[in-house]
Amino acid sequence: MGELPGIVITGASGRMGQMLIRSVVASDKARLVGAVVRAGHDWAGRDLGALMGVGHGVVVTDDALEAFAKAQAVIDFTTPEATLEFAELAAQARATHVIGTTGFTDAQLEALKPAAFHAVQVRAGNMSLGVNLLTQLTKKVAQALDEDWDIEVIEAHHNRKVDAPSGTALMLGEAAAEGRGITLADHKESGRDGITGAREKGAIGFSAIRGGDIVGEHDVLFAGMGERIVLRHIATDRGIFARGAVKAALWGQDKEPGQYDMMDVLGL
Amino acid sequence: MGELPGIVITGASGRMGQMLIRSVVASDKARLVGAVVRAGHDWAGRDLGALMGVGHGVVVTDDALEAFAKAQAVIDFTTPEATLEFAELAAQARATHVIGTTGFTDAQLEALKPAAFHAVQVRAGNMSLGVNLLTQLTKKVAQALDEDWDIEVIEAHHNRKVDAPSGTALMLGEAAAEGRGITLADHKESGRDGITGAREKGAIGFSAIRGGDIVGEHDVLFAGMGERIVLRHIATDRGIFARGAVKAALWGQDKEPGQYDMMDVLGL
Amino acid sequence: MGELPGIVITGASGRMGQMLIRSVVASDKARLVGAVVRAGHDWAGRDLGALMGVGHGVVVTDDALEAFAKAQAVIDFTTPEATLEFAELAAQARATHVIGTTGFTDAQLEALKPAAFHAVQVRAGNMSLGVNLLTQLTKKVAQALDEDWDIEVIEAHHNRKVDAPSGTALMLGEAAAEGRGITLADHKESGRDGITGAREKGAIGFSAIRGGDIVGEHDVLFAGMGERIVLRHIATDRGIFARGAVKAALWGQDKEPGQYDMMDVLGL
Amino acid sequence: MGELPGIVITGASGRMGQMLIRSVVASDKARLVGAVVRAGHDWAGRDLGALMGVGHGVVVTDDALEAFAKAQAVIDFTTPEATLEFAELAAQARATHVIGTTGFTDAQLEALKPAAFHAVQVRAGNMSLGVNLLTQLTKKVAQALDEDWDIEVIEAHHNRKVDAPSGTALMLGEAAAEGRGITLADHKESGRDGITGAREKGAIGFSAIRGGDIVGEHDVLFAGMGERIVLRHIATDRGIFARGAVKAALWGQDKEPGQYDMMDVLGL
Repeated sequence: MGELPGIVITGASGRMGQMLIRSVVASDKARLVGAVVRAGHDWAGRDLGALMGVGHGVVVTDDALEAFAKAQAVIDFTTPEATLEFAELAAQARATHVIGTTGFTDAQLEALKPAAFHAVQVRAGNMSLGVNLLTQLTKKVAQALDEDWDIEVIEAHHNRKVDAPSGTALMLGEAAAEGRGITLADHKESGRDGITGAREKGAIGFSAIRGGDIVGEHDVLFAGMGERIVLRHIATDRGIFARGAVKAALWGQDKEPGQYDMMDVLGL
Repeated sequence: MGELPGIVITGASGRMGQMLIRSVVASDKARLVGAVVRAGHDWAGRDLGALMGVGHGVVVTDDALEAFAKAQAVIDFTTPEATLEFAELAAQARATHVIGTTGFTDAQLEALKPAAFHAVQVRAGNMSLGVNLLTQLTKKVAQALDEDWDIEVIEAHHNRKVDAPSGTALMLGEAAAEGRGITLADHKESGRDGITGAREKGAIGFSAIRGGDIVGEHDVLFAGMGERIVLRHIATDRGIFARGAVKAALWGQDKEPGQYDMMDVLGL
Repeated sequence: MGELPGIVITGASGRMGQMLIRSVVASDKARLVGAVVRAGHDWAGRDLGALMGVGHGVVVTDDALEAFAKAQAVIDFTTPEATLEFAELAAQARATHVIGTTGFTDAQLEALKPAAFHAVQVRAGNMSLGVNLLTQLTKKVAQALDEDWDIEVIEAHHNRKVDAPSGTALMLGEAAAEGRGITLADHKESGRDGITGAREKGAIGFSAIRGGDIVGEHDVLFAGMGERIVLRHIATDRGIFARGAVKAALWGQDKEPGQYDMMDVLGL
Repeated sequence: MGELPGIVITGASGRMGQMLIRSVVASDKARLVGAVVRAGHDWAGRDLGALMGVGHGVVVTDDALEAFAKAQAVIDFTTPEATLEFAELAAQARATHVIGTTGFTDAQLEALKPAAFHAVQVRAGNMSLGVNLLTQLTKKVAQALDEDWDIEVIEAHHNRKVDAPSGTALMLGEAAAEGRGITLADHKESGRDGITGAREKGAIGFSAIRGGDIVGEHDVLFAGMGERIVLRHIATDRGIFARGAVKAALWGQDKEPGQYDMMDVLGL
């Protein structure tokens, strides 16, 4: 038909949901065909255009299945519980499920798998091109350098962030550990304060800076004798995460069902 | 007589002691006239030139009073206990006492005072020009900006450092608190890790990075909405601390007895 | 009457004009009472609300005097020629004239003066709190440090910027020169490339980085032997300049006629 | 025999030569067996121990061939002319020739080749592990990102450096150009100053900061929309270049004759 792929946004009324809606509307490669809120939300039944100034003609709904049935992709930054439900519905609708939700337990991750037999599932803690590239570089550098190089991950975020270190910092730490052939859990050193003793050899350290409206900055420091390497990512616009998600939704259109991440999408 | 002021170094065999010896020898404004080690140290009685390749003709001693009697200044980076003893001897000798020792209790600081009635005492946790200037700037900026600007102190040091945050970081935090008219103890937020909740308004945060042979780097970040100010000091050579101490020793030569700090020496 | 001060925005249809309109509308301390475009602009006679989605009820006009007559302040980021005209009209209306326009010749600056006998005039090349504070700090540090400390100003901006170094970088360079008691024109070193020879003692160097959508970052580096001080400002949101202008407009309400800058407004 | 490989240092009396001597002496994997100065230098015939305090028993010579004959490797940071001569002598002695010399013309590089048929030749403009790794990363990132990401190389060095940008910055720029499939010469933008116009798409920009005693810092910035990646190397100790050269000398011991670079040595 040559029609542009239709995308549904879940959690439509939230900050990230609204940003995703704007990104889909702004894209010339996709159409917005639905916006889902949780049951009973007061946006349900109303026209997006009236609510947000964009998306005229799209009526917000709390019936996810009905919305997914008309779509080729679902972009979903909600909660692990909601995402598990959406995964099944997306599988039924054979729609690509792009998952930006974080905080899954191991059991929840396991529960996501069956849906991926029927539909494309793209899941990533951070959908920016830059961060995914940085993750790869981190692994590579950790592989190339021996334990005489101390690894530290330093991140900075706005003052409303409630957890430390950030999920992305942990992802970078995992990549460093993998590159070095160790387990992060056994070598993580976070929250230094007081009499700490000398740095343990082989540790991967984390520092969390909080202030103002910093969108997100991550440094991976490799500190040797007489020299240092720093791999840095700076995000200045949350739109990069939304644009990355739309890219993932489009990428999934001609792929076989299965579980993918942003490395696949970005061809890294 | 026009002779250059004579300086004695305590803790002569330690890493900082040796650096101080080299700085005095390298200075064309001072003479090295003594080197003191603790009682029974195997350097006692030996010629510095043979031990270090510099300071030929200066015999190391464990008799501090005898050494001080010949000197116009004593530079002392040892322990609080040793420094208290040296303070009395320096007072007897009317020699300027430059104190780089750290870790004093309040009671020990109190016990330092009497000696300052008889001799100049210059004490500072960090003797670099840059750090002392940064401390002043930090206070000034904290005064100029309101609580909507979040303050964070970030420091990086080598992997052998045993405490966090660094003494200099705490000094910068104190300066920020003073500028803002608050007490650091009530607003200090150090060692963020896990579910921390949103940043508390008015907090002063600390992060400690450890790796390689980093000499010492300190950032004071003021993060507002849409903009940030960073005041940064980078030390790349421990010699700056030794040179600052020699500068303090010379500065003290024509001053009245009393307690001073590096701000006085540097005219800040 | 207790009514909020009424503000008129000139150059209303431009990127900065629109940002200023949004800032006034968002402020709870001021009212938007007018929006001026140049004669014959197609926004003239139309309702702002219909054009921008904010400012309902304000009809755009190309008759500046009529608009100024109803206002307590005018915010003006246009061209030197337009600003000279607006200065006279603002003086007639006894309205505070906030001038963010740049690129004045010396003669044009001279021509601005008469209007300031009748109304408050606040003019600044950069209206952010942070940059003005940084300018002050730069002067102070340049005063405190001797010529053995090399001064470099490094700035980064988006890839559409057409001049280098930035006006703010030059302002910082001027502040450094003033602090050191020299003339920038005699010591400016910009655009290093090729065989430059060793750095000239006392020079003030400039570097311009261009890329992506960087809003504006400025570093003032003081590089000594074994240590460095960096004063850094990072702008991440152009809104800081608009908010600074609104702050200046409100500040001017109870001041005597005369010429002022952001240092006055910010009480620095 | 199990004896440690014997190394000769050329240009022994220079700053880099002395650093190389100290590195070989400090290594437990190599022996210092010779030190060469140019004909008639006043160090010739004297014992290194007396001259430098290290290297006792090694008599400095201006007869390179005699020195090379006893060695398994030669480390050579001199001039292109001297290095060409040493290359032939090293080939005769079948000694690994580590070349840190820079500034070769194309013709001189050509003239280096014949010697490599008989001995291992390792040549690199920068022998630090970190810089060579950074070069590789730069190429890889430039490959992964399209032209919408602006590339800038920013470097900082001490105030005695006479050229800009640094040789290492150019090497990084070459790597970026190679990754992107373009020619650096056609896209180099260095020394921005004045009315430059908007940044040219696809350009690779260079900035050179000069001040104090900065050993060497290099940033490769990839600036996109809403995000940035920075690859940074910081050298704080010139010893890293000397240690890299010793590593190259040892690495060459069991290799076939031929031309190599530090990527080979470091296994990157």
